[in-house]
Amino acid sequence: MRILLDVMGGDRPPGELIAGGVAAGRRHGIEMVFAGDELVVRRALDRIGVSPRDTAFSILHAPDVVRMDDAPVRAAREKRDSSLLRGLGALAEAKVDAFVSPGNTGAVVAGSLFTLGRVAAIPRPGILVALPTLEGRDLLVIDVGANADCSAEHLESFALMGVTYARSVLGIAQPSVGLLNIGEEDTKGNRLTIEAFRALRERPLDFRGNVEPHDLLTERPVDVVVCDGFVGNVLLKSVEGGVAAVTTLLKRAVVRNLITKLGAFLLQHSFRTLRATLSYSRRGGAPLLGVNGVVVIAHGRSDAEAIGSAIDVAVREVRGDVVARLARGFEGWAADGI
Amino acid sequence: MRILLDVMGGDRPPGELIAGGVAAGRRHGIEMVFAGDELVVRRALDRIGVSPRDTAFSILHAPDVVRMDDAPVRAAREKRDSSLLRGLGALAEAKVDAFVSPGNTGAVVAGSLFTLGRVAAIPRPGILVALPTLEGRDLLVIDVGANADCSAEHLESFALMGVTYARSVLGIAQPSVGLLNIGEEDTKGNRLTIEAFRALRERPLDFRGNVEPHDLLTERPVDVVVCDGFVGNVLLKSVEGGVAAVTTLLKRAVVRNLITKLGAFLLQHSFRTLRATLSYSRRGGAPLLGVNGVVVIAHGRSDAEAIGSAIDVAVREVRGDVVARLARGFEGWAADGI
Repeated sequence: MRILLDVMGGDRPPGELIAGGVAAGRRHGIEMVFAGDELVVRRALDRIGVSPRDTAFSILHAPDVVRMDDAPVRAAREKRDSSLLRGLGALAEAKVDAFVSPGNTGAVVAGSLFTLGRVAAIPRPGILVALPTLEGRDLLVIDVGANADCSAEHLESFALMGVTYARSVLGIAQPSVGLLNIGEEDTKGNRLTIEAFRALRERPLDFRGNVEPHDLLTERPVDVVVCDGFVGNVLLKSVEGGVAAVTTLLKRAVVRNLITKLGAFLLQHSFRTLRATLSYSRRGGAPLLGVNGVVVIAHGRSDAEAIGSAIDVAVREVRGDVVARLARGFEGWAADGI
Repeated sequence: MRILLDVMGGDRPPGELIAGGVAAGRRHGIEMVFAGDELVVRRALDRIGVSPRDTAFSILHAPDVVRMDDAPVRAAREKRDSSLLRGLGALAEAKVDAFVSPGNTGAVVAGSLFTLGRVAAIPRPGILVALPTLEGRDLLVIDVGANADCSAEHLESFALMGVTYARSVLGIAQPSVGLLNIGEEDTKGNRLTIEAFRALRERPLDFRGNVEPHDLLTERPVDVVVCDGFVGNVLLKSVEGGVAAVTTLLKRAVVRNLITKLGAFLLQHSFRTLRATLSYSRRGGAPLLGVNGVVVIAHGRSDAEAIGSAIDVAVREVRGDVVARLARGFEGWAADGI
């Protein structure tokens, strides 16, 4: 297996991302291709002792960079020499099995659409995240940001994509699906969710109805949660905000005096477990599903560990043969009444 | 001042809500009216030693109840003998200065619209919440659930309502406004937020552009955050979910063994401060702004303390003369280009 890592467009320096990529490549026993400025990548590889003769690690030279503040669609059309577009090109030509990037999310989505195209019958790709829950197993949420405006048809296709992913990657035989909503009753919600509710009920899915955001992490009511990309993005960032508020308050509280410092010392292992469970860096990759290729979007702030985790996600998606299964899963889908 | 409390439609027993109402009434030195079944209310008052001759506490008899699972609009039209509608009727007739209910939110909104009507020129009422932040001062968010589908015009009016409330109740001279969005750049978002952004920029407001959910509680980037009711509700419940996840994990972690138990004992004061800061019960009331009267919606799970806090919110809104100020604030608003 060969995985390509775009090392240029993230918030952290390329050297840090490359170190994470080398470690992950060795851990999985796979080949890694680093897309970026050749000199920069070569120097970073030298620094961590990777010889130019080591065939497990190669470079795809790309002189240009898509920046975080570039307009996504424009960058995806114009910056053909960027690590982002050259990397996606290598995936389209099947020179690599997966593409991982911590860069501009909108540009990755637009670039993937232009370069790879959609899986037949999937109207729009969606970004899926696996949220850690207190129940132990992850909760899948799709879409968390690829589509700011969605139709009920889009939400239906997100449901099938999420179910296919849960089956192929998590090995859940009959994944259950919930619709993110602001009330549990069947008739609750806005025009979009009310229409999507009716449509999802008619699909051959284990649809459990509406789910609300407040107990997703504590109860894990379903395997897959479906929502439009705007709402899914608000969900993710709000949960993140709630977690940040508590942990910051906690930090302030425990450094107050000697007694609380001793208390914190005795609890240090517990605090570490807490951070690890909710850690973003251990959950660093969100697959973009519905395009013709394995594309994993890493957080812009990804460090070496987070990049390693995003590569793990890509490896699992390649092994799960998700793209081919999506294509098969959506055969006849459009004819089914969409 | 006289405040009416609907004691029948919440999740907790009327006696508990009445105890909270009596305590809050005494604390503020105001009169309280309890809307509900006369026998039930009388018995609850007897139990806590409130004499029938105590003129500070009276009863508005209502034999019917709007349940949590009643269809809101239908209940608001048909259940005329419910504590919810009789209570709103008393407010409409100016027999009381404010109405507080922990009941069915949709029915409170629909009932308020039917019974009190809208403040002239305000297209739709909005529910405002004050979120505690790490910066000390609360953050106001409007709308968090009155309107599942909104237009840009609605969001503009929420902005003016939030600003009026921040001025009248929090005493902020020039409140700043942010638009809840999934990116900070001006052009980010869905159709609604892109249109609302352009419209808000033209209004005579201190509009600071888009704000994202993840740092609202830690940074408090603005005084007032504007969003559609669906997204606002998801925001609230997601933050709640994030907080619940961390605190539950923490509880599990600290009971693990003797050492962690000792650590937790030494930190017990810090944990208590943490809970108090983020406590829902201390933030129990959300004003429904834009209707002709002071209506405060309490959480369905409200206990005595939370009901007391919702009554505090109502007292502050009456003292701040918010309804009259809204009416004045919206004079000429419609002519301004909506």
